[in-house]
Amino acid sequence: MSQLYDPNLDGDVTVVDKDLLVSRLHQYMSTDLVLTVLEDKKPFECDGLSAYCTVPLIVVIPETVSQVQSVLRTCYEMRVPVVTRGSGTGLSSGALPFEQGVLLVMTKLNRIIEIDINNRIARVEPGIANLAVSEAVAEYGFYYAPDPSSQIACSIGGNVSENAGGVHCLKYGLTVHNVLSMEVLSVSGERYTVGTDALDAPGFDLLALLIGSEGMLGIVVEITVKLLPKPPQAKALLAAFDDVKKGGEAVAAIIAAGVIPGGLEMMDKIAIQAVEDFIHAGYPKDAAAILLCELDGDDATVAAELETVTAVLKRSGAIEVRVAKDEAERLLFWAGRKSAFPAVGRISPDYYCIDGTIPRRELANVLQKMQDYSEHYQLAVANVFHAGDGNLHPLILFDANIPGEFDRVEEMGARILELCIAVGGTITGEHGVGREKLNQMAVQFSDVEIVQFHSIKNAFDTNGLLNPGKGIPTLARCREYRVLKSRRVDLDG
Amino acid sequence: MSQLYDPNLDGDVTVVDKDLLVSRLHQYMSTDLVLTVLEDKKPFECDGLSAYCTVPLIVVIPETVSQVQSVLRTCYEMRVPVVTRGSGTGLSSGALPFEQGVLLVMTKLNRIIEIDINNRIARVEPGIANLAVSEAVAEYGFYYAPDPSSQIACSIGGNVSENAGGVHCLKYGLTVHNVLSMEVLSVSGERYTVGTDALDAPGFDLLALLIGSEGMLGIVVEITVKLLPKPPQAKALLAAFDDVKKGGEAVAAIIAAGVIPGGLEMMDKIAIQAVEDFIHAGYPKDAAAILLCELDGDDATVAAELETVTAVLKRSGAIEVRVAKDEAERLLFWAGRKSAFPAVGRISPDYYCIDGTIPRRELANVLQKMQDYSEHYQLAVANVFHAGDGNLHPLILFDANIPGEFDRVEEMGARILELCIAVGGTITGEHGVGREKLNQMAVQFSDVEIVQFHSIKNAFDTNGLLNPGKGIPTLARCREYRVLKSRRVDLDG
Repeated sequence: MSQLYDPNLDGDVTVVDKDLLVSRLHQYMSTDLVLTVLEDKKPFECDGLSAYCTVPLIVVIPETVSQVQSVLRTCYEMRVPVVTRGSGTGLSSGALPFEQGVLLVMTKLNRIIEIDINNRIARVEPGIANLAVSEAVAEYGFYYAPDPSSQIACSIGGNVSENAGGVHCLKYGLTVHNVLSMEVLSVSGERYTVGTDALDAPGFDLLALLIGSEGMLGIVVEITVKLLPKPPQAKALLAAFDDVKKGGEAVAAIIAAGVIPGGLEMMDKIAIQAVEDFIHAGYPKDAAAILLCELDGDDATVAAELETVTAVLKRSGAIEVRVAKDEAERLLFWAGRKSAFPAVGRISPDYYCIDGTIPRRELANVLQKMQDYSEHYQLAVANVFHAGDGNLHPLILFDANIPGEFDRVEEMGARILELCIAVGGTITGEHGVGREKLNQMAVQFSDVEIVQFHSIKNAFDTNGLLNPGKGIPTLARCREYRVLKSRRVDLDG
Repeated sequence: MSQLYDPNLDGDVTVVDKDLLVSRLHQYMSTDLVLTVLEDKKPFECDGLSAYCTVPLIVVIPETVSQVQSVLRTCYEMRVPVVTRGSGTGLSSGALPFEQGVLLVMTKLNRIIEIDINNRIARVEPGIANLAVSEAVAEYGFYYAPDPSSQIACSIGGNVSENAGGVHCLKYGLTVHNVLSMEVLSVSGERYTVGTDALDAPGFDLLALLIGSEGMLGIVVEITVKLLPKPPQAKALLAAFDDVKKGGEAVAAIIAAGVIPGGLEMMDKIAIQAVEDFIHAGYPKDAAAILLCELDGDDATVAAELETVTAVLKRSGAIEVRVAKDEAERLLFWAGRKSAFPAVGRISPDYYCIDGTIPRRELANVLQKMQDYSEHYQLAVANVFHAGDGNLHPLILFDANIPGEFDRVEEMGARILELCIAVGGTITGEHGVGREKLNQMAVQFSDVEIVQFHSIKNAFDTNGLLNPGKGIPTLARCREYRVLKSRRVDLDG
């Protein structure tokens, strides 16, 4: 039996009576929904960040909310840790299994419960894929705004866990801005409602608290999302620069000119070349950086914004500004961006995707410092990012088969995130903290803030059973890491 | 000394050593900032809901954040309850003082710390008036969107406490959607940051949790708000109906037609007549209801929406549809709406403003039921509301000098709020729970949810010192009230 929640334990490993647990799970779930053998469990050992792997004690794949409720009750009574997983596309090891725990896979809870176009909402189960929601409401002229690159596969429940974003979130917000209410199960399986479809909910804002909480506070079983009308017009612009710095300055200048584009993305030379060789999107391969800018709205607004943005880009020193001549070319521009990760995967055996945010004015400065790190660690970096949001996604290229190489990658990734903090940004834009960024939490937050997070965890999950060892570091770990960090060679001058 | 936080105590009244407390406060605050005499404290005995009054033990009016910090440390050490107050315009007795406690008045912390137009943000102290923020950035063509009717006086800190809204929040969101980050003091005076000016903050969403938490979790000392560009064009429409029901249906039809107006307000006959006699806004005094609808954006969008809305209004049976012919008339339309509360104050010795939300489709139904209640309780009601949001503000007219009349008013108000819950709405749109709506929390939420709220309170304020007796009812009170409610005569058929 594990003890009561202890903020000094990273996840308390005690041995669970597996046979007893399995026999209890079989009371309400058929054997094919309870995976106990290594070869069945192996595919679930990691999420999208495959550098961290753990095979769980048991994988359960419930088909109904009532089964989820029973699993939680059983685990609560037996003090078994529970890690919840959607489609497994997460990039911060938020769904990394716990060795002596149950992995609760939500993919079979994937129904659309209700579409209410008059009120612009849809009620869905957590396992449904992000894109499936937009597809289901497309016939009415609506869509669901947050659009992670993995939207074909990633689940809405996973999006809620990590407060996912995407290209559109500059203009339309993150997951937290697009969810109205949720049905939640507590650690002991009690059902409750957070948020409201009405204007405001009384009491503390548990809806926002649960969104982005990485399965550490409760299990979401139903989600009511906002639907937005598809804008009647969308135009995409591509601008090329002979200097990354000028591209970064153009981003800040567009926003300062009063335009919030539907999407504003940037890529550097390595990314451009990898994408162009893969997708043939028509990107200029000799450019040091490109910006992709989408303007959406009614015809008059889009026309006016197109004029403003073109002028700003030219003033910022763009060597080429090209408007997609038709819908096919617009989609091609975006197909290139959406394929950037797999395209980089073609030019390097492995890559590690970092997710941090910075103030837009720091773009040029941070890109320069990343080049310094790249030289120091002898690791190439491809840059693809949601520039309008200041959300960086540097991809560090490496080969996992070279012993010790991943250690250098991890340290370089840590430096990039800590640089984000130093210039006034944060260690995550949309991928979450998970297992990956525990150390950087110690840099982002003071002990007062870390203690406050632990108190909240304790208020929801006194026994520390939900996704142990994720999201919040122990105070001991914070202190250790801060010492380690202070001993590193300074590269920032 | 009060005990550790006990969810079964509504606010534990223990006697404080006033002399000791005053001598400690005088160590860092001059005597004019510490009010101890009844006649000085009397003006602070209530907020905008004057039906509930309590004179606090001491009123402190700090001038610096460091003084606020010292006050909190002293009160924490001496276990003295602290109620925080902004301008005192709140309408749910959220700032009702505690008899054996300190009232912490934040009005002198009213500086603008920074305006950053390129990043569209302003950093302000909590005591600044809502309108003063918009005025300070008007020269750059920007404004702060949430606009409570009391915006000349109400403070941003108070807006944060109650998650305030206003006419614009249909299109531009509540306070929680317009604040990026805050500096907060814990109950023991420790300073920490919640939220970020960057895209997303790691860790649990403490920013959203603190907004609307009515001073029960921490004290906000600095707020970074979003600024929006003023729309280039704004047009106002007035539509009159011979039947309140048709007006309600028109509201739902406008939203269903794909238009989100900048404001969409409704008034019934009593309110129209009171306003027209007071302001002479040109409202049709013989109409059963009017709608005011504002459309904002660029010229083309506004023109297109004006056409759509006019057609919808006519189809919905409006007997008159009038577009304000110039800016002066547009402002006059709104001056009428903004003066509705004082206008009603002229026709009745007292009025009680209720704040609840309902799904838009229930507007007509709920208006009918309110007429039934009005007859049953023999109390007239004037209706003024943010119709687009489904946010009702029925004003119950009464005379506080008639013994027992306020009891009937309170019961009728309770029925209206509980009707809101029954049709799928909530007990507050923008005024908060405060002292006023503790009973209705027992109807809105299950015991599981109430317990969850108490756990969060405990995680921030173990000794229950911050604004005791507000926001969350005890479980005992919930049970008592549910019994009481079940014994009432049914008026809803």
